[in-house]
Amino acid sequence: LDLDLKSGELLGSPTNFEVRYTDLAGRIARLETPHGVIETPAFVPVVHPVHQSVSPKFLKSLGFDAIITNAYIALEHYGDIARKRGIHGIVNFDGVVMTDSGGYQVLEYGSINVNASTIAQFEKDIRSDICVPLDKPTGYGLDYHTAKNHVEQTLTNAKDTLSLVLENSNESEISRQDGAHEPIWAGPVQGAEHFDLVRYSASELDKMGYTIMALGSPVEIMETYEFSILAQMIASAKSVVPTKPIHLFGAGHPLTIPLAVALGCDMFDSASYMLYAKDDRYMHANGTARLEDLSYLTCHCAVCTKYSSPKELFDSNKEIRTIEIAKHNLYILKTELNTVKQAILDGRLWEYVIQKSRAHPKLMESIEILKDSNLLGPGTPIFKQRAIFFYDPLDQHRPEALHFRKMVSGFISTKSDGGQGKLILYPDSSVHPFYATRDFKKLAKKFPEAQICTYNRFLGIIPSEISDIFPAAHNLSAKLTTYQANNYNTFVESLKEFLTKNEFEEIIILADQFMKNIITNNKSVLKKFNTKVFDRVGDITSVP
Amino acid sequence: LDLDLKSGELLGSPTNFEVRYTDLAGRIARLETPHGVIETPAFVPVVHPVHQSVSPKFLKSLGFDAIITNAYIALEHYGDIARKRGIHGIVNFDGVVMTDSGGYQVLEYGSINVNASTIAQFEKDIRSDICVPLDKPTGYGLDYHTAKNHVEQTLTNAKDTLSLVLENSNESEISRQDGAHEPIWAGPVQGAEHFDLVRYSASELDKMGYTIMALGSPVEIMETYEFSILAQMIASAKSVVPTKPIHLFGAGHPLTIPLAVALGCDMFDSASYMLYAKDDRYMHANGTARLEDLSYLTCHCAVCTKYSSPKELFDSNKEIRTIEIAKHNLYILKTELNTVKQAILDGRLWEYVIQKSRAHPKLMESIEILKDSNLLGPGTPIFKQRAIFFYDPLDQHRPEALHFRKMVSGFISTKSDGGQGKLILYPDSSVHPFYATRDFKKLAKKFPEAQICTYNRFLGIIPSEISDIFPAAHNLSAKLTTYQANNYNTFVESLKEFLTKNEFEEIIILADQFMKNIITNNKSVLKKFNTKVFDRVGDITSVP
Repeated sequence: LDLDLKSGELLGSPTNFEVRYTDLAGRIARLETPHGVIETPAFVPVVHPVHQSVSPKFLKSLGFDAIITNAYIALEHYGDIARKRGIHGIVNFDGVVMTDSGGYQVLEYGSINVNASTIAQFEKDIRSDICVPLDKPTGYGLDYHTAKNHVEQTLTNAKDTLSLVLENSNESEISRQDGAHEPIWAGPVQGAEHFDLVRYSASELDKMGYTIMALGSPVEIMETYEFSILAQMIASAKSVVPTKPIHLFGAGHPLTIPLAVALGCDMFDSASYMLYAKDDRYMHANGTARLEDLSYLTCHCAVCTKYSSPKELFDSNKEIRTIEIAKHNLYILKTELNTVKQAILDGRLWEYVIQKSRAHPKLMESIEILKDSNLLGPGTPIFKQRAIFFYDPLDQHRPEALHFRKMVSGFISTKSDGGQGKLILYPDSSVHPFYATRDFKKLAKKFPEAQICTYNRFLGIIPSEISDIFPAAHNLSAKLTTYQANNYNTFVESLKEFLTKNEFEEIIILADQFMKNIITNNKSVLKKFNTKVFDRVGDITSVP
Repeated sequence: LDLDLKSGELLGSPTNFEVRYTDLAGRIARLETPHGVIETPAFVPVVHPVHQSVSPKFLKSLGFDAIITNAYIALEHYGDIARKRGIHGIVNFDGVVMTDSGGYQVLEYGSINVNASTIAQFEKDIRSDICVPLDKPTGYGLDYHTAKNHVEQTLTNAKDTLSLVLENSNESEISRQDGAHEPIWAGPVQGAEHFDLVRYSASELDKMGYTIMALGSPVEIMETYEFSILAQMIASAKSVVPTKPIHLFGAGHPLTIPLAVALGCDMFDSASYMLYAKDDRYMHANGTARLEDLSYLTCHCAVCTKYSSPKELFDSNKEIRTIEIAKHNLYILKTELNTVKQAILDGRLWEYVIQKSRAHPKLMESIEILKDSNLLGPGTPIFKQRAIFFYDPLDQHRPEALHFRKMVSGFISTKSDGGQGKLILYPDSSVHPFYATRDFKKLAKKFPEAQICTYNRFLGIIPSEISDIFPAAHNLSAKLTTYQANNYNTFVESLKEFLTKNEFEEIIILADQFMKNIITNNKSVLKKFNTKVFDRVGDITSVP
């Protein structure tokens, strides 16, 4: 089998995925499929091919443009009828239909009685828009050897599927040329907590030409709240396949969506809305709650406004109640997706993900992965239209702050005067840019020869000459005393580097409490300079 | 004028406010009024007595059981008609109607042409349920002298009103006895950023017998995002009047509601839903956005689900659009209130307020007030049904953590053996209580004579004997490396105190990274002991 570029085109051209906006590793994009375009990030509800308690029509009315259903069950239950009517006819949905292969059934029941080629042929025959080869999910908790075995088995299936696709395409050159019915093939990435296997798996599928990376089976990882493992799993796949769309299987917990988007996931499918509903679990912005534990309906969707209390909903007939909760859950998921997309456009995905992470301590622990600038840097715009918000020590690691400090590290002051010059360090305020402030003008008048800078715990040293550059002039910084100065290690680095690259004789500091603590904790950094520390600007300008 | 207890009863008996659940200084309560009971915390929408673009019927259908309207405008516009039909007939609302006096008009237009007694008599005549004497709002930014003048003027009005109420009640002893038409009187607390004036003002009104404290005019404070001042203003009123209900005037910014409830506010009124709508400002969970800046509708209320995009809503007729946005804004406010109430019941108001505070850096700065244990301690249950979540250094100041450390500070080990005993310090895990864990059993077997404790960065030292007491066995703690060990100053205090009150000869520590940093930073604390530090439990149990 020759895995050349051509196969890539056959498995769905990379050009059918157009990225429009990005923030962190998150992105808003358009994915073209045989049955129309969907916007990502997209939540793709699972629809059972036989039993549909929430109608696909309702899903469409909520704005879900794609659904996913199970090819294996469709094959077993409908067979030729499905081939004839097509999967869209079977599930009664005129949008985009993705088909899962039956891998989940493998996870649940051990194995199934069809092979990869049969499933792949069937997925083609029923005109699925996005197809997945038969995979062997790793789940969570397998030893390395077994997990590797599952990965290899899945890759073999993916190759068999590829052969079939190539064969078919040779047979029907004409139908392929109009492109109308060529599905997109998504490669099932397995490996779970064995991150090198995830990387290996994604890399192999990428080389084969699969257009979408479909990251397998985080269900168990999410059920045990191992969000750090989930985050590293996503980051592993993303690190080897940075541009192609990533689908995350079974990710229907509303908690995880913002983080997963920020790490680069573009699509999510799940039956959670229905599974949770059957268990009377009601989604809300911070997770799920058992309906009987709620005293208030914290939602105003079309379902919840019908009931005066959770009790009234809980007291209704079980069958009706399940559908009602499922619909409510879908509203919550839809709003979550819209909120994340709006955050991307606003350039505030970082703020949103971290805010959201305070829904659970385990989720909070997982967000330290956001410090990985290789992962988040490339997608984060260098300039943003809106101010960004800095809250606590985590935020010094924002890609925008990192980028700014890098820029400052290349700044060479024209005023160091061969080591004879003066440096003035002044606290950053919310009035920006600093060079346009009255304080700056006073200082510049008094010390025309001095290098004047502000300092900001999140951004480091800000030379006044570039104090209008994003985000120096486009941020709002919280100054809490709870977080001690020595949490801001990037600040100390920025100060040290500035003093090394630009030599001064004298440093005049207007020190707020933060800077006073920095000075106390870093005496060695300043001891070789003639350093004067003041409390008030009036004291500086009255220096002789 | 004799301000005895009797006047208190006349102004609305304190017994008409029944607190049912509390968390922090927040509470869920029932307030009885002549037109029925309302549950607090309650948002009380402002309804214009003449021009109603959103019908009171719609407000009722959303679950708003109380509205507020303006007595001064009703007097000017309707006069005797209002006296005859009653304010409920005028505004066409059969729930609870509160009347503002015209103080806001004073703020807007300087002064109005009626006196306190006239307004008070009118409010009674129109059978308002909750009445406010004519006040002279301090707004924000007045110098101390002028602000004090406004406070005194308002207190004089409050006294005049009281005279009138007492006089009336003597005249109509019979109608008063059945109590059906006796309104509740709310005392207008002024002073704004002059917190001693706020305390003085609240204290005087309390003494006069006013049942509700109506905290004046934070509108300008909120518009400038001075949330810290707002928080201190509320805390000032609460500190002198801890039990009576507090109404916060003009607090319609969705951002501020969770914090205001946590600090003890029970009611909020605002016309913001309509004022914002007129300006095309769309409320969302984190604040407001200009409709034209949105690409996605981040809501699923009955209004938003009618439109496919913000643009479609924005392109509609201005008049229709204004009402649509106003209705949407009301849905958001209602859900916010329900979410806060559910958080009180769940014992997770602290978590919710801090999560919410990440909507704006200025809001985040204001939450350091939550460290005030005098304010938040009394209302926080000593035992909670659900686990609490610890995230970052702020959370060491939770009332529950403070309470636990206080309890431990009274713990006297029976195993210190006159200074000859052993102390074992072991990291807390998520398996609780510690005394039931396998690790504990191993340790206890190896060291039957030793005092065994766990340590938790948020709770301090936890003797295994009381490791089942809330919240030692009922918490989930995030362990991020971003927040350095020396942020946890309460931990160091707890350790020091334990070692002072209980004398040991030897300390055996299984040290995680956090504890290693604590040891490095606090060498003097441990130097007088024979201290052994281990990395793994196996190393401890193999100690000879």
